[in-house]
Amino acid sequence: MSREIVVHKYGGSSVATTEKIVNIAKHLIEVKKSGKDLVVVVSAMGKTTDGLIKLAKEISHDPDKRELDRLMSTGEQQTIALLSMALIELGQNAISLTGEQAGIKTLGLHTKNTIESINNEIILKNLDEGKIVIVAGFQGVNENGDITTLGRGGSDTSAVALACSLNAACKIYTDVDGIYTIDPRVYENSKKIQYISYEEMMELAYLGAGVMEPRAVELGFKYGIEIYVGKTLGENNGTIITFKEKIMEKKEIRGISINKNILMVTLDGIPTYARNLYPIFKKASEYGVIIDMISQNDVIAEKGSIAFTSPRTDEESLRKMFKELECNYEILINSNVVKVSLVGIGLATSINTISKIFEVLSENNISFHQISTSEITISIVVEETIAEKVARLLAKKFEL
Amino acid sequence: MSREIVVHKYGGSSVATTEKIVNIAKHLIEVKKSGKDLVVVVSAMGKTTDGLIKLAKEISHDPDKRELDRLMSTGEQQTIALLSMALIELGQNAISLTGEQAGIKTLGLHTKNTIESINNEIILKNLDEGKIVIVAGFQGVNENGDITTLGRGGSDTSAVALACSLNAACKIYTDVDGIYTIDPRVYENSKKIQYISYEEMMELAYLGAGVMEPRAVELGFKYGIEIYVGKTLGENNGTIITFKEKIMEKKEIRGISINKNILMVTLDGIPTYARNLYPIFKKASEYGVIIDMISQNDVIAEKGSIAFTSPRTDEESLRKMFKELECNYEILINSNVVKVSLVGIGLATSINTISKIFEVLSENNISFHQISTSEITISIVVEETIAEKVARLLAKKFEL
Repeated sequence: MSREIVVHKYGGSSVATTEKIVNIAKHLIEVKKSGKDLVVVVSAMGKTTDGLIKLAKEISHDPDKRELDRLMSTGEQQTIALLSMALIELGQNAISLTGEQAGIKTLGLHTKNTIESINNEIILKNLDEGKIVIVAGFQGVNENGDITTLGRGGSDTSAVALACSLNAACKIYTDVDGIYTIDPRVYENSKKIQYISYEEMMELAYLGAGVMEPRAVELGFKYGIEIYVGKTLGENNGTIITFKEKIMEKKEIRGISINKNILMVTLDGIPTYARNLYPIFKKASEYGVIIDMISQNDVIAEKGSIAFTSPRTDEESLRKMFKELECNYEILINSNVVKVSLVGIGLATSINTISKIFEVLSENNISFHQISTSEITISIVVEETIAEKVARLLAKKFEL
Repeated sequence: MSREIVVHKYGGSSVATTEKIVNIAKHLIEVKKSGKDLVVVVSAMGKTTDGLIKLAKEISHDPDKRELDRLMSTGEQQTIALLSMALIELGQNAISLTGEQAGIKTLGLHTKNTIESINNEIILKNLDEGKIVIVAGFQGVNENGDITTLGRGGSDTSAVALACSLNAACKIYTDVDGIYTIDPRVYENSKKIQYISYEEMMELAYLGAGVMEPRAVELGFKYGIEIYVGKTLGENNGTIITFKEKIMEKKEIRGISINKNILMVTLDGIPTYARNLYPIFKKASEYGVIIDMISQNDVIAEKGSIAFTSPRTDEESLRKMFKELECNYEILINSNVVKVSLVGIGLATSINTISKIFEVLSENNISFHQISTSEITISIVVEETIAEKVARLLAKKFEL
């Protein structure tokens, strides 16, 4: 009989108390009894990681990143130990593994690592022994043997990467019951999506839908692993992320996301030739600053200006980086902006979407800072105060 | 110029807040500036370890010990990251190392490991690079690559073991300003000891003085490393633990300790032949239960009884162990007893100490459960309610 492995992932709010952990343990034993081999990825309990970051910020505005990784990675180590204990207490053989023990090798800068490879030998050995294997999400080990973390939402990436490596099904359990066309807290008529393509989900995830980490979706896409997203211990009626070919109904707009973790940098009085801009983006890459939307459309390049967006969490690094660059142009950083994005695989073939969007903006007298479009996405940067209103108006227009 | 290395150890209450951590960082930079190479061992912040144990107990009365080790060891990982961050923030090059990264290999049962060896290569390399090296106390790694812990007070052992390995001076910083003849909270006239021998300190430590971990003192003794014990960021007037040959005044009784972490097991109706007792003590060793004072003095061995003391923290293991043994004799476990011990290198040559002790017990009409004597120690097990009174009476008698 061929082996069937399932990877489950439980987020922070799902493991926030020991009571919740014990309930998950009971559920896992049921799944195991149904004949499946189980690898379980967990996040830190509740707001543990935020609490640790707060401690670090009490010590430094910009804590050393190697040390920050070490600090942040302790939360997941606690959860794996507790969940494994709960399983053993209930009579189920189990073992906890850190990212390193699970063979997760990473590359890159501390606090923003990517998974380079997974050696699943130890996991398979423990599954063979009948154990449920509990793996610390969000972490791995780099070539120096130092513990690393995978950035916000990194546990999703851990789970999908393990599923890819083990050729397993992947189920992401969270505190919402699936992916919605738009955040129900923003627009109450929002609908749950049953199937969504990797491409659409990647855009929605990158754009701040917050439910799934985009790199995780990308990995699933690359290795052809379907990802289920649903409520922890809930009904089996969440959202399935799969290939677009499997989705019958190709909607013009599948969903709208609101990304609050952005700021907008405007450089004024800089001749916008590539030779002037290259040092900036090179330095940004050295500092690990993510550059998102870039807009530059000057008539006279010598008196140019350029704007781009970055995550707000990169603000400290941006300020340091510009200080080091000793620029002779004006730098404006606006942290009160938000990006509203519309995503749909139907967008590519639709001819009047842009027109509809501008109809809404114009009718409601809404001004915006930036707009950019791609194959399946249209993003608009607006002031934070009006972002949710804009999202609601667009959701209504596109009947989401 | 030859290198001078100092190992500092800071306990949980010394690193309980980020403010305290920053103050320690400032002090360390001063020490480093004075030309010394610094290795710093730290415990978990404040009551972190207790909080983690509480979580584990919510899940299981007797949590799986491998998982418990993983859970408990996260506290120290947080402190090393924060202290290292604080040093780097203050402009001092520093690096944090887990027990494993510091080369601390352990042997034994989870939660009660001993240090087998230290490979100090990585520490020396980092000292060579001008860094202050921060090492997680209380932890190491076993032959399976699993994280292990060294039992209560294990950070002292980490510090002294590192000092031995690096041939360094060793300073244990804590919230008391030295070793006292008897706990000042019990007897207000208690005096601070300037010099104490390893032997006396080992006995006092084993007997529950609580200031220093006995294995740490033993290691210092074995490798000839003097240990300073004093207040964190306090005056340099603590206690020095050294060879008895270096101590001029050899007092009959150097100190009195009270050990509350004991229980007394009485087995009644067991023929007290070695063949009957061996399986019990063999099983105890398998379960990692520590056996302390044993008393057995029956006239008729067939109708015998035997009593011994163990740490209260081993109660759960004891109950499991007796269950497995399926005994046909009566088992009484009394957790309301306390051990009061008198320690002094002068005891060996004193002829009237025992008599003085019984004078005190008799005059005050005090009954006791067990008494045992060794070269430099006399221990008496009494009911918890009268333990402090007994200690005070004896302290007065021996002018401590």
